[in-house]
Parts: sequence; C-alpha cells; structure tokens
Amino acid sequence: MTPSDKALVPFVSVEAMMRLIHAVGLRPMIAAIAQAIEEDFLRWESFDKTPRVAAHSPVGVIELMPTADDTHYAFKYVNGHPKNTQDGLQTVTAFGLLADMATGYPLLLSEMTLLTALRTAAMSALAAKHLAPSGSRVMAMIGNGAQAEFQSVAMQHIVGIDTVRLFDTDPAATAKCARNLASTGLTVVPCRSPEEAIEGAQIVTTCTADKRSATVLSDNMVGAGVHLNAIGGDCPGKTELAEAILHRSTIFVEYPPQTRIEGEIQQLAPDHPVTEFWQVLAGRAPGRTADRQITLFDSVGFAIEDFSALRTVHAKALETGQFAMLDLLADPDDPRDLFGMLMRAEAAQAA
Amino acid sequence: MTPSDKALVPFVSVEAMMRLIHAVGLRPMIAAIAQAIEEDFLRWESFDKTPRVAAHSPVGVIELMPTADDTHYAFKYVNGHPKNTQDGLQTVTAFGLLADMATGYPLLLSEMTLLTALRTAAMSALAAKHLAPSGSRVMAMIGNGAQAEFQSVAMQHIVGIDTVRLFDTDPAATAKCARNLASTGLTVVPCRSPEEAIEGAQIVTTCTADKRSATVLSDNMVGAGVHLNAIGGDCPGKTELAEAILHRSTIFVEYPPQTRIEGEIQQLAPDHPVTEFWQVLAGRAPGRTADRQITLFDSVGFAIEDFSALRTVHAKALETGQFAMLDLLADPDDPRDLFGMLMRAEAAQAA
Repeated sequence: MTPSDKALVPFVSVEAMMRLIHAVGLRPMIAAIAQAIEEDFLRWESFDKTPRVAAHSPVGVIELMPTADDTHYAFKYVNGHPKNTQDGLQTVTAFGLLADMATGYPLLLSEMTLLTALRTAAMSALAAKHLAPSGSRVMAMIGNGAQAEFQSVAMQHIVGIDTVRLFDTDPAATAKCARNLASTGLTVVPCRSPEEAIEGAQIVTTCTADKRSATVLSDNMVGAGVHLNAIGGDCPGKTELAEAILHRSTIFVEYPPQTRIEGEIQQLAPDHPVTEFWQVLAGRAPGRTADRQITLFDSVGFAIEDFSALRTVHAKALETGQFAMLDLLADPDDPRDLFGMLMRAEAAQAA
Repeated sequence: MTPSDKALVPFVSVEAMMRLIHAVGLRPMIAAIAQAIEEDFLRWESFDKTPRVAAHSPVGVIELMPTADDTHYAFKYVNGHPKNTQDGLQTVTAFGLLADMATGYPLLLSEMTLLTALRTAAMSALAAKHLAPSGSRVMAMIGNGAQAEFQSVAMQHIVGIDTVRLFDTDPAATAKCARNLASTGLTVVPCRSPEEAIEGAQIVTTCTADKRSATVLSDNMVGAGVHLNAIGGDCPGKTELAEAILHRSTIFVEYPPQTRIEGEIQQLAPDHPVTEFWQVLAGRAPGRTADRQITLFDSVGFAIEDFSALRTVHAKALETGQFAMLDLLADPDDPRDLFGMLMRAEAAQAA
C-alpha cells in the first residue's frame, strides 16, 4: 500500500524550512525571494489577481490569498489573531501551496509562518531600495515583534542600512529584538519612545499588531525626506498612521483593490491617487522624485509575493533536499477507479 | 528540535483516510457525513458564504472553497482537469483544512479526493431522500467514472434503491463500475445507451466530466415523475442537460450565486426561479409536491458540504487514531521570537 509518486507532494515543514534557510543562508534566501518578487512584479499583468478572501471574527481573521499565471498556481492560508500571544500562540501563522496549472496537481506544500516573515522583509526592502532616500543608513523599527529582525536584516542586506532604532510599547520585545540583532553587524539603538526612535531615520518601518485604528505615528512626528514602510495595517479597521501623514505622502501600494480595503489608505477617499509599486519597477511610474518628499509604501502583503516566495522555496528545497514527501493525493492505478482502490485497500489491510 | 504540540497539525493522508473509512465502515461514514450536512444546512444562515474562488486555464480549473461559522473555518482546494486521465492522473484531486476561528490555528489537514467522493454521494443521497419519488428503487447512473460507485452505494443506503442501470460512453468504465458494485447487494444493469439506462428509473444521476456544454440527457428522454441528480456540471461552460428539461423541472440548488455561474442553470435567465435545498430541509420551502413532477437537484458542490465532511473526519480521526501529526506551524517559545527560534535552530543543527 505504498503510495505511488503521483500521490506524493513535496512538503517543507517548519523544521525543514529552518534547515533550508540555514543551508542557503538567511541573507541570500531573502535576496532570492526579493529577486523573485521583482521578476514577478515585472510581469504583473500575466497574473490572475484577486483580493484575498477573508473570514473575520471578533478576535481575528483567516485569509486565503490565491494567484496564478499561465503555468503555476499558488495560495497562502494565513491567520491574524493579535490576542494569540496571550495564550503562547503566534499572532500570524501560515502555510501555502504551489501547483501546476496544467494538471491542477500540487507541486509543494510549505509552512509559511517563517516564509511570510522572509517575503515580507524581502518586499519591504525591495520597495525601500527604490523609494527611500539614496544613501539611507538609519531605520526606525516601530513594533519589535516577530517581523522586526527580518525587516532589519533585509534592509541591511538589500538597502544598505547600518543602524536600527527600536521602539515597542513592550520593552521586553525591544530587548528581545536587540539581543537577536546583536551579532548582525547592525548598530542597534533601543529607544523609549517612537519620537526618539525616528530621530535621524531615513526609513521608518511600522509593524504593530493591534486590530484597531491606532496612531503609531502622529503627523508632527514625521518630517520631510523619509520613507515610511507601513506593514502592520493589514485588515479593515486596522491602521497605524495618522491620516494627515497620508495627505503629505506619495503613496505606493501593491494591489489597490486590496489595499483600499485593508491598508492605511482605507482612511482616505476611494479615489485618492496611489501608485502601484510594480509600475515603479517597470519604469512606468516615478518613484521618489525629490529629496524632501515623504514616500509611503502602504504594504498589506499580496498573493504574488507569496507566489514568488513559494517558487523560490520549491527550487531551493529541490536543491537542498530539505523536504519530505506527503501522501496527500489519491492515486488509483486507473484514475476512474477510486472506489476499487478503496476496496482493495481494505483487503490489503485485512491481509 | 522536536516541534512542540502547538506546531503540530493532525493530518489524514490518503492511506489514513482509507483506514479510517474501513474502521468506521463505508456506509456508516457516508451516513455520518450526510447527517453532518443536514445539521449544517439546517443552520445555513450561521455560515459565512462565498462562491468558490476559481483560477481557470484552457485545460482545467483550480478552486478554493472556504466557509466558516462562529467557531470553525474550513476550506477545500480542488482541481478539475478532464484530460488528466489521459496521463494517468485524477480528473479531480482535493485536500482541505479545518481551523479554529478563535485562534486561526488549523485543527485538521486532510486528503479530500476520497472525502469529496463521499461527501458528494452523501449530498446527492440526502437531496434524493427528500426530492425523489417515494419508494424509488431504480437509479440510472450516466457516467461511470470515479464517483459512480459512491453515488450508487449512498443511494442504496440512504434512499433505499436496489438497482442501478449503468451507462458510459466508454464501456470499460461501465465494466469497472459493475465489477466494483458486484458485492454490494445492488442489482447492476450495464446499458448500451442513456435511453436504455433510464428505462424504469425513478432517479437519474448524471456525472460526466467533459469541460463543455454537453447534452447527456435530451428533452425527449426524460419522462414525468423522476428525480434528476445532475452533479457533473460544475464550471462555466460545462453542462449536461438539454435546456428544455430545465424548463420542465422544479429546480433545487445549493447556493444560487455559485450555481448560476457553474450549474445547469447557467443556461437559464439569471432570475429563473430556483429553490435553495436547505429551505426544503428546514420546512421553509416545498420539496416534491406531485408524483408526475420532475425534480432536479442541480448540484455543483458547496463549501458547507466540505465543512461538514471535514468536521466528520476530524471527529472520526480522533476516535480511530487514523492520523499523523504534521510539523506545519512555527511555534517559538516566545511567540514574538520567530527570529530567535530560527537562529537557535542553526546552532542546534550545527551542534
């Protein structure tokens, strides 16, 4: 009763993902994902796009994020439950699947809790590389939860920052983050207020988890010539920036139909002008045009980024051998004989 | 580096599903799913409902089917690629997930190729029990592919039929189906035409797989006083019944917004009257009202049925022990310390 090859789907568990990341190297892995995102954003129009499909409850949200091109299909399952940490659970967990459009058969099932942290960091860094003031060296990191170190390392490797200034309402989170970044080569400055954190920063990343309209940054805190990387606002009713900041910013987004529902711009009129970031990459729209401009990447995470991350993991898993085979699909000898397969299994199990 | 309990998701592989079905018994398992569907349809309004999210290609479709109530969330991944059988692959493969709405954490990952066959048969039989002429004993089964035996056994166990009359354009499929049904107690009659198959049948089930508008049943073939169970039409452009039959039938559907796109009724005006089947179960709408009436269950499969099937499997898997634990979720000791978990894994792996 050993399943045939066609029944088996390569599976990257959390353990395998950690081994894979270490085999490739954390920074090269983030860079590979950033490159895959850039490649996929440059062929934006070849993807089948849809806003994510969300199931909301009073305490959180569960979402499916599918996308496809002519050859591959991907989706991610992801939850967001801010109160989970009180019970020792992750706020965000995720897994995803890559499939073959020609047959509908899965090619890869993968954990995506770690992978989402990597791809979010890769996306943020790719955007900052094109939108932040040239020569940016200092990032303020507001919110020092699970994403903070990945953001910092990606900005270091891809954008070239050398200093992160940390703030969190919980000093223990800042201490954890500072400890983890100690050996990265970054200068790490724990701060006691958001105001202190953004002093001298060219890049300000906000990544907080409350499911409500918050004002992590107020209008008077944000001066000219910065790049705002707002990644914590990612569902209806959850924002991080004062509305006035948005009116002073040139706003870049991933996929407007989704960002208008979930991003910072849910605070604005539905026709407020925004630029799709892929158009900047493609040279179809300007990025930063002036030193004193405030650029805002209002990032909620989009399915194509997960597609890019999954195809990177698929390639790296096959290279490194960091996967197991999972008996996920029924594969009778005669595809029409599912019933016969079931009946023969009973005989085989009884024997 | 053994993952903690919170990182592990119960997984029912194909092999485990076959053992589970045999441990419970095929007929009791189908009956349990039918009962769960009935319970869930009776609280229809407590579900978050959405038409499935489809990615179409020239050769097939990949779909996600999510739904949720206050406590549980479920989705199914399912493909439909009619040409797959030419390459020794299944036309339809599927897997699915049950999750906890309070935390967003998965409770069960399960194969659903076999399970979809069971839940489709359970759904068809539940509908026929309420819509077919009382005392129905004979079913015509048009299309003798992977679903045919499950349909036959469910109709035998839940509706009480004693005879199936089989037709398929491929005689080998009919022979396979007849062979598999030989020991079920059903009288099995292989037929050489659809006309021959429907002779004397009170229930006519059509389950063919072509991705195009076909006419498996033409108008003059369908007499008065039958129940049509049309389950093969399940995507845009794919239908099985001549339009004229629809005009003579009282039509019952699962979820109109989805069926109008995918079902037989895509041939009709968008305001053509249909009855939601759950309303029949709930006593809010009439089912069959006359002996000579033609009832049509225009079934495309709906997410709540998969929800019902997954919660049944979850309970039965825990009862029978037929599952494995899958390291699908990252679970750092401190939920905010994903990065630290990754770094410590490297140290542990190097040690």
